[in-house]
Amino acid sequence: METKEKTMPKGGEFLIKETAAANIFIPEEWTEEQKMIAQTCRDFLEAEVFPRLDEIDSMKNPELMPSLLDKAGELGLLGTSVPEQYGGFGMNFNTSMLVAEVLGAGHSFAVAISAHTGIGTLPILYYGNEAQKAKYLPKLATGEWKAAYCLTEPDSGSDANSGKTKAVLSADGKHYVINGQKMWITNGGFADIYIVFAKIDNDKNLSAFIVEKSFGGVTMNEEEKKMGIKGSSTRQIFLNDCKVPVENLLSERENGFKIAVNILNIGRIKLAAAAIGACKKVTSTAVNYSNERKQFGTSISNFGAIKLKIAEMATRTYASESAAYRAGQNIDDAYDALIAGGMDEAQAKLKAVEQFAIECAILKVHGSEVLDYVVDEGVQIYGGMGFSAEGPMDRAYRDARINRIFEGTNEINRLLTIDMILKRAMKGELDLIGPAMAVAKELMEIPDFGASEDEGLFAAEKKVLKNLKKAGLMISGAAVQKFMQKLSDEQEILTNLADMLIEGYVAESVMLRTEKLVALKGEEACKVQIDMTRLYFNHAVQVVAKAGREAIASFAEGDEQRMMLMGLKRFTKVDPLNVKEVRRSIAEHLIAKNEYPF
Amino acid sequence: METKEKTMPKGGEFLIKETAAANIFIPEEWTEEQKMIAQTCRDFLEAEVFPRLDEIDSMKNPELMPSLLDKAGELGLLGTSVPEQYGGFGMNFNTSMLVAEVLGAGHSFAVAISAHTGIGTLPILYYGNEAQKAKYLPKLATGEWKAAYCLTEPDSGSDANSGKTKAVLSADGKHYVINGQKMWITNGGFADIYIVFAKIDNDKNLSAFIVEKSFGGVTMNEEEKKMGIKGSSTRQIFLNDCKVPVENLLSERENGFKIAVNILNIGRIKLAAAAIGACKKVTSTAVNYSNERKQFGTSISNFGAIKLKIAEMATRTYASESAAYRAGQNIDDAYDALIAGGMDEAQAKLKAVEQFAIECAILKVHGSEVLDYVVDEGVQIYGGMGFSAEGPMDRAYRDARINRIFEGTNEINRLLTIDMILKRAMKGELDLIGPAMAVAKELMEIPDFGASEDEGLFAAEKKVLKNLKKAGLMISGAAVQKFMQKLSDEQEILTNLADMLIEGYVAESVMLRTEKLVALKGEEACKVQIDMTRLYFNHAVQVVAKAGREAIASFAEGDEQRMMLMGLKRFTKVDPLNVKEVRRSIAEHLIAKNEYPF
Repeated sequence: METKEKTMPKGGEFLIKETAAANIFIPEEWTEEQKMIAQTCRDFLEAEVFPRLDEIDSMKNPELMPSLLDKAGELGLLGTSVPEQYGGFGMNFNTSMLVAEVLGAGHSFAVAISAHTGIGTLPILYYGNEAQKAKYLPKLATGEWKAAYCLTEPDSGSDANSGKTKAVLSADGKHYVINGQKMWITNGGFADIYIVFAKIDNDKNLSAFIVEKSFGGVTMNEEEKKMGIKGSSTRQIFLNDCKVPVENLLSERENGFKIAVNILNIGRIKLAAAAIGACKKVTSTAVNYSNERKQFGTSISNFGAIKLKIAEMATRTYASESAAYRAGQNIDDAYDALIAGGMDEAQAKLKAVEQFAIECAILKVHGSEVLDYVVDEGVQIYGGMGFSAEGPMDRAYRDARINRIFEGTNEINRLLTIDMILKRAMKGELDLIGPAMAVAKELMEIPDFGASEDEGLFAAEKKVLKNLKKAGLMISGAAVQKFMQKLSDEQEILTNLADMLIEGYVAESVMLRTEKLVALKGEEACKVQIDMTRLYFNHAVQVVAKAGREAIASFAEGDEQRMMLMGLKRFTKVDPLNVKEVRRSIAEHLIAKNEYPF
Repeated sequence: METKEKTMPKGGEFLIKETAAANIFIPEEWTEEQKMIAQTCRDFLEAEVFPRLDEIDSMKNPELMPSLLDKAGELGLLGTSVPEQYGGFGMNFNTSMLVAEVLGAGHSFAVAISAHTGIGTLPILYYGNEAQKAKYLPKLATGEWKAAYCLTEPDSGSDANSGKTKAVLSADGKHYVINGQKMWITNGGFADIYIVFAKIDNDKNLSAFIVEKSFGGVTMNEEEKKMGIKGSSTRQIFLNDCKVPVENLLSERENGFKIAVNILNIGRIKLAAAAIGACKKVTSTAVNYSNERKQFGTSISNFGAIKLKIAEMATRTYASESAAYRAGQNIDDAYDALIAGGMDEAQAKLKAVEQFAIECAILKVHGSEVLDYVVDEGVQIYGGMGFSAEGPMDRAYRDARINRIFEGTNEINRLLTIDMILKRAMKGELDLIGPAMAVAKELMEIPDFGASEDEGLFAAEKKVLKNLKKAGLMISGAAVQKFMQKLSDEQEILTNLADMLIEGYVAESVMLRTEKLVALKGEEACKVQIDMTRLYFNHAVQVVAKAGREAIASFAEGDEQRMMLMGLKRFTKVDPLNVKEVRRSIAEHLIAKNEYPF
């Protein structure tokens, strides 16, 4: 069996290793069961959410969102990740990604359900002891209790561990008494359970607590007024001498920051999935409108300027999706291996995600930025109606904007990706030094301009991909050498490196997906996907070249600079692509289908 | 005197001619009078508008916006462009741009005042006969009557001349009876005067009419609900047997489309000015917040990732401003020359703007896209508070988005710029063929890699600029040869060419501004502006290289493609710029001043 021959990939390793297309999961491989789950989610949105988008956003009926979560619970949509013994379905990680994706088209509802099943439920699932899991998970899986996650404070956003909320053990040793203020709490208005992060006494690090609203001492401000996701309850939460039984400490004292970080890893990759779902919906809606809207005597979908947008919207969505499920499957495979090695379930799930934290951050940035691109072009295709609150694009545009901010701003996530890679390299977990030195050596040699021996589909792309990785290794290696411990002060260079990393990962993922798809269905049936792959490569190479050039010019000088720029030029050399024809051909496929069809 | 030695530039000519820095107007040259007018506008916003932004956007008080316009009228802010004989101040074009810029920070109010003074008043000012001007202009200049512009219809947006509104002469020949439906009418809810475009009988082209609400037959829908500029009245207007006296036909029958186009030219450059005003305000606000917001124990303005944003926000704003007032002065100079040649005032004003219609479209695209960039980064700098409706960035972000849609979408404006240039070339008004052939010839020769003789400030940039123009000429020349009359079907390539044109024009403008500034104040005093100029060039060259490459790959093949790609590489060759240091240095200037200080 194919799966048995897989060598288990390690997080971040894509930088230095090649992956065989056969070894990645592609969304065209969903099983019938997974497709049915996706269809259930789709049906739920059609029946319960889409007809009520205005009502949800108006927030006039505070019972509406909890009642929608109840209905979702009845259908089992809240228990995808929860093990069967606690009343859930114990589906694998990629299935929970699929659910997040489809529901991601659901605007404020998507945020509410994702906060409940993700950052609300998972800390208990992954860090709870047996008693905590038995008490809380069944109620969370059905939706009887709703959950919220209380990390951010007014003065503590990106710098999460600096929170001021305090927990003090009561005189009788039975309770922690918590005082503090939490901000931007999704589901805050109706949650029954809060995962609260606070520092015990004068601890350096946060601890995490399961707080029931019924404990008392929890009050809140009015609903926050926001640019978008207006139907998602967002509150400031005040903890005033809130008495939390000692048995509700989650995991160990001072383990809260680690919990927060690990839960955010999951939140990030799921956010990417949700963004992909929103992208598909918006693209379909825009294609449909462009077919219906007539100007200059014809559908505007006949204009090149519109086709260009449609092709880019589809291609970037397809690319982001390719990367998301590749990483999701990696997480599942790592989990299976850890379980096989004897680890317990919760621990294995955590370790598996932690292993791919770099990919999670990459996907969060990419997915949220593709979504902002897609909604922006959606507005533009709609023209005046794009700016009207009566059309669908206004809500899509406003709702999308939060994704680059929450679960760690994209700025922080970019810095994190590189930071994590360098830390793994320093620990010897990821051998960057060898490959980086090999690239440095290659730079000194006469370049090999000979034809590639490989002549199959994507032979050129594979060569490009190797080169893009070399470009990243060359520049990051030199930057580390130059700045050593002070590299973290060079956020601009780290941002450049992150851009190179993100595009390299996504370009590889889209190519592997299409390659596997072609192996399954033949080249003829995959023409559009092949075009999208080439178009995405064209885009990725430009981003890498620009970021690389900026980075080199920002720290190297003289001969070193000249040599690295020459190397970068060599590593980002690609054959010109007739983007006009390729985009037209992609767009015409969507226009004929009148939707995003992949 | 310097002004006497000027050779009068012609619109679009920047493509093929060099401009001396001494011959452009720069915003640092505002007279004391102009500065006072700007201060009046600023004071007005501070006193009347900024404290009422929420109230304005709530639309609860329908009298509020008209009363603000009345107050602005009392201060003379509605009559900047109206000649003194009609109760205005008869200021030159650039002064009206300055007013538009400062008021551009005023959100919905900016849209209302700009629609009234611009597309509402100007058709009468420029196309009205003496009786029409005498009757309407004084009341419009004081604000006693408010004006709106009724062009767009539900099925007629970008394709404006396809409108279905009909005007039929009454049996007694005294009235036109107008029937039809108009959409997205700014100031629609309270206007006393509508400039209505309609087709008389079965005319091919539109005619324009001055319609007083008091004529009867004008009804309207409720206020449109919109993503932003929520306080700007936007209505559907219905004309039901509206009887308009024949003397209210504006200009001549079937001249309406021409009026619409010319008035939109002015609207476009003024929109750019307003966008610049909004950019300055948003940048100042974001800088201020980044100084106040503390994370990781320090102001976030100390982080490179934030400095990068601040520097780009400032630089692009500075660049857009440089181009806007350069073009504004060109319009003023052309007007003076036409007046000196004996043309009447209104005709001269129109012809002067028409001459620079290419620049107006360029500025509309550039200004609105810089603004969207600036508000987007503003949101990101604010983090969670950027998404809060209690912070300033939410409104800025939503309000900005309309600018890429109205006054012609940016897609249409991009196509227009190239269309206008090619039409002028065909008419022999702009000699593109000679210079394009010279570039083609140069491509066949051995390139001159010798050092530039010129060694002064911006010697390198001047060489780059020449090259960017050559790149544009090379590709547009080849595209014209290849597609001939069918080039208009190649919207993607036209869009590429437009990007090259826009960046070339703006890069030249920012360099000329800084060059002139250095001549006035010395290099030492202009360090930040010099940095911004270099940073902008770095950006512009990248855009040109990318657009050029896309265009070439989209229509040229084989040897022609190879030669043009080589030419493009040569023409977009620049020395690497340490963007990190340059951005830090620019940002630190703004951070120290705690605002956008230019």
